[in-house]
Amino acid sequence: MTIKPNPQHISSKQEAERILSKYDNFLFDCDGVIWLDEDLIPGVAKFLEWLTKNNKRFAFVSNNSSKSRNSYLKKFENLNIPNVTKEILYPTCYSAALELQKLNIPKGSKVWVLGHEGIVDELREMGYFPLGGNDELLDKAFDHQSPILSVDPEVKAIVVGSTKEFNYMRIASTLQYLLHDHKSLPFIGCNIDRTYPGPKGLILPAGGSIVNYMSYTSNRDFINVGKPSKQFLDIILEDQKFDRSKTLMVGDTLYTDIKFGNDGNLGSEDENGGTLLVLSGGTKKKDLNHFLKNRHEYKDSESLVPSYFVESLGKLIDLLE
Amino acid sequence: MTIKPNPQHISSKQEAERILSKYDNFLFDCDGVIWLDEDLIPGVAKFLEWLTKNNKRFAFVSNNSSKSRNSYLKKFENLNIPNVTKEILYPTCYSAALELQKLNIPKGSKVWVLGHEGIVDELREMGYFPLGGNDELLDKAFDHQSPILSVDPEVKAIVVGSTKEFNYMRIASTLQYLLHDHKSLPFIGCNIDRTYPGPKGLILPAGGSIVNYMSYTSNRDFINVGKPSKQFLDIILEDQKFDRSKTLMVGDTLYTDIKFGNDGNLGSEDENGGTLLVLSGGTKKKDLNHFLKNRHEYKDSESLVPSYFVESLGKLIDLLE
Repeated sequence: MTIKPNPQHISSKQEAERILSKYDNFLFDCDGVIWLDEDLIPGVAKFLEWLTKNNKRFAFVSNNSSKSRNSYLKKFENLNIPNVTKEILYPTCYSAALELQKLNIPKGSKVWVLGHEGIVDELREMGYFPLGGNDELLDKAFDHQSPILSVDPEVKAIVVGSTKEFNYMRIASTLQYLLHDHKSLPFIGCNIDRTYPGPKGLILPAGGSIVNYMSYTSNRDFINVGKPSKQFLDIILEDQKFDRSKTLMVGDTLYTDIKFGNDGNLGSEDENGGTLLVLSGGTKKKDLNHFLKNRHEYKDSESLVPSYFVESLGKLIDLLE
Repeated sequence: MTIKPNPQHISSKQEAERILSKYDNFLFDCDGVIWLDEDLIPGVAKFLEWLTKNNKRFAFVSNNSSKSRNSYLKKFENLNIPNVTKEILYPTCYSAALELQKLNIPKGSKVWVLGHEGIVDELREMGYFPLGGNDELLDKAFDHQSPILSVDPEVKAIVVGSTKEFNYMRIASTLQYLLHDHKSLPFIGCNIDRTYPGPKGLILPAGGSIVNYMSYTSNRDFINVGKPSKQFLDIILEDQKFDRSKTLMVGDTLYTDIKFGNDGNLGSEDENGGTLLVLSGGTKKKDLNHFLKNRHEYKDSESLVPSYFVESLGKLIDLLE
């Protein structure tokens, strides 16, 4: 096995230009790359304008399943980020809906949802009938006689993703579906993220933690439709007609974003590979250094090493200008 | 490695008498063995009376940390189970308090609690000052500016256990303590149970699932103070002056109760070992058969095989009489 060299720090105009010139297409994670919670990361809008001006194309790939593509679109508009259309947005609530299709779950089927309205909205748009979600019975204090704990036999699959609205009633009712009929209903998890960078430096639990909870309590594996799923990347590249060898993945998390790009063999014509870590989100410089020093202790560590790193997209546009 | 034979079904008066005669002491799990939720399992009181009449001694070891020993005592009283005193009760909220002592956390220290009042009560009784728990700030809708998300620097340890009262505020605030000061505060988990048998056959998420959630989101291991911890067993045997070789563990769960007895080498003078599975709780006959048929697929499978099994303690007293 070849050992991947440590990532190259982009720290001059010349390096920035040389590296970006190798790529026609850019995939961006959102939380920690484009914004932190409701705040745009400074310089991002300018960097995206630079890309458009230079005939580069881009799309956004977020493991946050709490917002539908329509809601993401509104968020981009509110933050005054230009040139974003629904067709270049890939939150994992959408990939969950795509997965139901791929599993041949007939349109019109009921699907149990533990997660925020993004999942509910995307499932509806794809022609499914979501149950659970924000059903008001789920907001009640736990009662073992609640009708919501009785499995609806017409449910054909289960989707679990990001939500801040979880309580014992939600967890217990979802468990009934996961155990139902000898654990035979497909179990889709929207992501594996442990945490995400919240406002003011706060590190907050992410959707992958709730997916993991349901996996543990039901003693079942799940289909991960979020990064680093190779199948998810294939769908996006195909959809966007992005040339894999000329596509750069930009993210702030090693085990989702960077692994996604490395496993997917992005930037194959670049001897360094096609992944760029930004330090504006969950992974700080000290975290990167700690990882690089101890990489032998990590599972699949080679797939976690980015090709490049830079402080933020704002820093990148500063270098370019 | 020797392969442990399949467990022996206790199905006659003669077998019941022969096996029970080997043991002076009995450790009982509670949920699924003594009761199901609020309902006493039929025959249990009679069986415990039989033990007392025959000069056997017993204690109760529960991974359910939601009730303190005092609350357990009331529950036993309400269910009209005689001969139970506080000194023979070992819920894991109590073992968490014992662990804090063992870790030399000074009495009077603040300890962050994610869990039900059992933990809060036992920590107080041991001289600690619990924070978190059912603090009313934790019942509010999530707000990243809530003061409860600011780490109290005087907190010296974190205890996580069974609770039905969890929400994003509780999870997020507990995560702040788990990440605090380079993840240096001791992290005690009260159990590893995935589920427990609720009323009317309902299978419900157990405290181990919430411990696992916090472990995943913080990317940290925890000190398990519940079954199958060997140290927990040692404390109980020492406390009760039970002879290990003449003690039988009775439980309904393979990966906690049965492993606890097997790892602890209970009943070492009995060629079959000192563990008895009852089928009145979470493990049904078909689950046991499935496990025995597929035991090669399980990690540490030998430690999960019980010595004996019987339908319930009620069935056992029926056989004896």
